[in-house]
Amino acid sequence: MRYLDDLALGIDFPCGGFTLSREEIIAFAEKYDPQPFHLDEAAARQSYFQGLCASGLHTQGAAIGLMVRAIADVAVVAGYALHEARFYEPVRPDRRYEVVARWTEASPSPRDAGRGRAVMTGEALRDGVVVMRFGVTYVVQRRPG
Amino acid sequence: MRYLDDLALGIDFPCGGFTLSREEIIAFAEKYDPQPFHLDEAAARQSYFQGLCASGLHTQGAAIGLMVRAIADVAVVAGYALHEARFYEPVRPDRRYEVVARWTEASPSPRDAGRGRAVMTGEALRDGVVVMRFGVTYVVQRRPG
Repeated sequence: MRYLDDLALGIDFPCGGFTLSREEIIAFAEKYDPQPFHLDEAAARQSYFQGLCASGLHTQGAAIGLMVRAIADVAVVAGYALHEARFYEPVRPDRRYEVVARWTEASPSPRDAGRGRAVMTGEALRDGVVVMRFGVTYVVQRRPG
Repeated sequence: MRYLDDLALGIDFPCGGFTLSREEIIAFAEKYDPQPFHLDEAAARQSYFQGLCASGLHTQGAAIGLMVRAIADVAVVAGYALHEARFYEPVRPDRRYEVVARWTEASPSPRDAGRGRAVMTGEALRDGVVVMRFGVTYVVQRRPG
């Protein structure tokens, strides 16, 4: 188990990659983000995106799924906040995107000696180009004793 | 169709409510946020949350799904950014949460006379208490002519 005190800051760690199929993109959008450019290829072609692309929330979910698996050994108490997410390029069906994360901040709680907050930044990349970036703050246990 | 110029700022509009079942919470978490307190009732009872709760991203998706339906008549070009999301209370299975949104900013683009940005803030509430709050910036068309 890794604790707040064990997190190395500023060091990229790869989390693997994801690929979203056309069917997954549409099914997610029907539930959580029903905009034409996430739902229908013909409508998407007429849109700003010029073709079907995943909901930003779907991209973020795919990335967080990989990031959470990559930090499964960290003593996370709870998620505290999702920071601003920026979407630089549309995420297209059937393409693989790599996810890279890093811890950028870790600070003990001023009130609770057993805990602190840690910020993780995550990016999804295609051919080395960042298509999405966001951060998340977790409450993490401190090393006991 | 409503354009950037038509958005009334600062006025709450109700978007309906959502309820997430235990099965939906677990299925979402398995894909997008596999943390013990979103996956398993026994593990969740031992956690900070003292019981199963939905991923913040799942709550946000349920809210955005309703908000997008409520603004289906707005000429959205694209999503631009998801702002910070804060999670104040755990979202539990089989409880109904109400979603309320409002437009908080609308500004024409300095570069493109046909477009601008609009910020929508959304909240999920239970018994009048805000359990989650976040914002989203959209690029929206200006009224033609």
